Order: sequence, then structure tokens, then C-alpha cells
Amino acid sequence: MLKQYKLSELDLLPSRFKANLINSCTGYKSINIIGTKSDSGVENLAIFNSVIHLGSHPPLIGFTTRPLTVQRDTYDHIKASGQFTINSVSAAFVDKAHQSAAKYPSDQSEFEKVGLTPEYLGNSLAPFVSESALKYQCSYVNEYPIIENGCILIVGAIQEIYIAEDMISEDGWIDLSKREISTGIGLDGYAQPKDPIRFEYASPTTKPSLKNA
Amino acid sequence: MLKQYKLSELDLLPSRFKANLINSCTGYKSINIIGTKSDSGVENLAIFNSVIHLGSHPPLIGFTTRPLTVQRDTYDHIKASGQFTINSVSAAFVDKAHQSAAKYPSDQSEFEKVGLTPEYLGNSLAPFVSESALKYQCSYVNEYPIIENGCILIVGAIQEIYIAEDMISEDGWIDLSKREISTGIGLDGYAQPKDPIRFEYASPTTKPSLKNA
Repeated sequence: MLKQYKLSELDLLPSRFKANLINSCTGYKSINIIGTKSDSGVENLAIFNSVIHLGSHPPLIGFTTRPLTVQRDTYDHIKASGQFTINSVSAAFVDKAHQSAAKYPSDQSEFEKVGLTPEYLGNSLAPFVSESALKYQCSYVNEYPIIENGCILIVGAIQEIYIAEDMISEDGWIDLSKREISTGIGLDGYAQPKDPIRFEYASPTTKPSLKNA
Repeated sequence: MLKQYKLSELDLLPSRFKANLINSCTGYKSINIIGTKSDSGVENLAIFNSVIHLGSHPPLIGFTTRPLTVQRDTYDHIKASGQFTINSVSAAFVDKAHQSAAKYPSDQSEFEKVGLTPEYLGNSLAPFVSESALKYQCSYVNEYPIIENGCILIVGAIQEIYIAEDMISEDGWIDLSKREISTGIGLDGYAQPKDPIRFEYASPTTKPSLKNA
């Protein structure tokens, strides 16, 4: 049985119910920790469920943020330093990643507060999460203010990637399940998918068929 | 052991390897079918792995598209009609959803070609996917051309939602796993997460704890 919600009915729902519902509607989300460093050297991290692929040539990613809420440190540090890291979240520390959404004072290291380990790789000025099996350094490229609700799409260029080798398949596809990487539902739900399948390139003259099957 | 790819090394990789790698880097993606209808009444569908939550008050979603590639029908129909539907993908028809990425001629119904069923609910002029357990009607709101690579972020406003009732929890959170809804890795990988967990709201004065545990 399908439950129907008209827009006029959504507006009458309790605010938290509506937020949970709408946040769950788009399906599974990426879960990543963004690492930054303040002007005064404080190491910052924050969990984001909005990191998306924007392009491969050149490698570009995006994520959305609200400048006047919990993620403001991240936004300010990125604007000031031009640098950030994106770090995957595995089952073993998804609780700590979730905890990084708490609003700690800006002068405290959130790595320390949640119990994750900062790590510097390559020439990145922003800290990586040592525990992450897939992570990359990004430089700030641009931002697009979404005038409809004041959120901002930040665009970053991937500079350097670090991946656990066993996750990389022969053709470059990454098996996220090998390191129990998390996906998210809504604002506070997490799961670690298992046993992904792949399909061959879809063409009008072929039927869907599994890759390597 | 972490494998390192510098930007200069990424540029030397075979194009397909690089595309698979970069497309997998952001983590798990949402998988949805977007339904539209052409001026001449042809029902169109296409799989998208870029639908994201933009806001709950009002309910806004976004997705990225490249106007000159496979998704052009979807973009043209949305621009002309102002309407589209977003439909979740369950394990039972993920093969058909993947097949909708094939470049069928614009005058053919992709519902028919891939074997999914068009359905009209409420006052939507765009077809829904009957098989989907979670779907909603959207109106076109705005678009943001991403100047760095020519892709476009389309913003849509949710008008009316249809959800299998057993997926809706008491506080509005949707358990996508109850209907084996798919998530994606890269360009061609799919999985159906099981047993999601939820955490309580993160605060600086509390430790992470499971909801309803």
C-alpha cells in the first residue's frame, strides 16, 4: 500500500518528521569526513552526506553546505586555505564520524574530540583521517549559491588520491564493500553494503548482463 | 597498503580506468529513475546516480546532467513540461533500470524498451515507475550551469510523495532496506544495503549512541 503525501500535507507534518522523510527520499547518500585546518592551525573534521561526483576529466567533486550552521568551520577553512581532504568512513568508526556532526567550539580539534587520527600525506596542508581506506586531497575551485534556500554547492578539484590497493579492480572501479565503507539514509542512518554487482555498458541492441558473470 | 595517485598520474591513466576510479571515489550514490514525457507524448525514463537532497523546508532536490549526452531527452522534457518524477530502484528491477541508460531513439518509449510500467498518480503529467516503492513528483525550479565542466545542476521542488507504508518509521525516517532499494558505485555497480543503524543526535556533551538500541 502506498502512502501519499501532498505538498500541503507535508507542510502540516511536525518539522522533525518532515525533515526525516524528505532527507530519506533521495535514496542512499555518500558518507564522507571533510578535513580542514584553520588559520591558527586547529585541525577540523566534519561528516558530510552530500559529496557528489561532478566530472572525471578533470576530476571534480561537489558538496553542499549551509554557511550559517554546523559546517561553518569547514566552509571558512576551505575559503581561507583553499584546501580540504575527503575521507571515506568504514564500519569500524562510523560512530566517531557521526559524532563529528556535534558543534564543538572552533578552537578545539575535532579529531581529538571524536577519537580519529589526523595524518598528513603528500603536500596537503589539510589533515587526512588516518583510519580512512579511501581519501583524497582537494583544492577549492568555485561555489554556487543555491538561491532557493541559501545552501551552497562547493566545487573541488581532486589533487591526489590514496586508496587501499585491494579495493581497486582491474578497470579502475573501486569495490567500496571490501573495506566496509558506509552509506547513509536521511540524517542519522548508516549501512555497509555487501556484494555489489556490476552490469555491462547498456546499449539499445543488448540485454542487461552482469560483468564478469 | 595505500596506493597513491597524483593528479599528473591520473592524467596518464587509460580514460576508462580513470573514469571508473574517479566515479567511485565519492562513495555510494543514490540510484533513481527519472520519468518524463515529451511534447508529443512519448514516455521517457532514464537512470540517474546524482539525485541529492537540497532542503526540507521547502522540499528541494537536485541532480546533475550533461545536456549533450544520453540524458538530453530528460533535460529537454523537463525544460518543456516543467515536470518530472523521481523513482527509487529495487533489487527486482535494477537490471532494467541500468538498461535505461542505453541511448534509445527519442520517439520510442523507454518504459516499453526496458520493461517497466508507466503509471500516472495525482495530477502528474510525467509518468511514474509503477514498480517503485518510493517515488515523487517534482516541478522544475532552476538550473545552475557548472562552468568548470559544462554539467548542469537541476533543482526540483517535491510536489507529492508516494511511499510503501512499511518503510516509514515513527519519526518519518525511511528504511530503504525494507524494499531492497539500490545504491550505486561508480558507473555500473549496484548493491542493496541491509540492516541500517541510526545514531542519536550528536552533541558535544554526549557519546555516540544508537537510536532505539
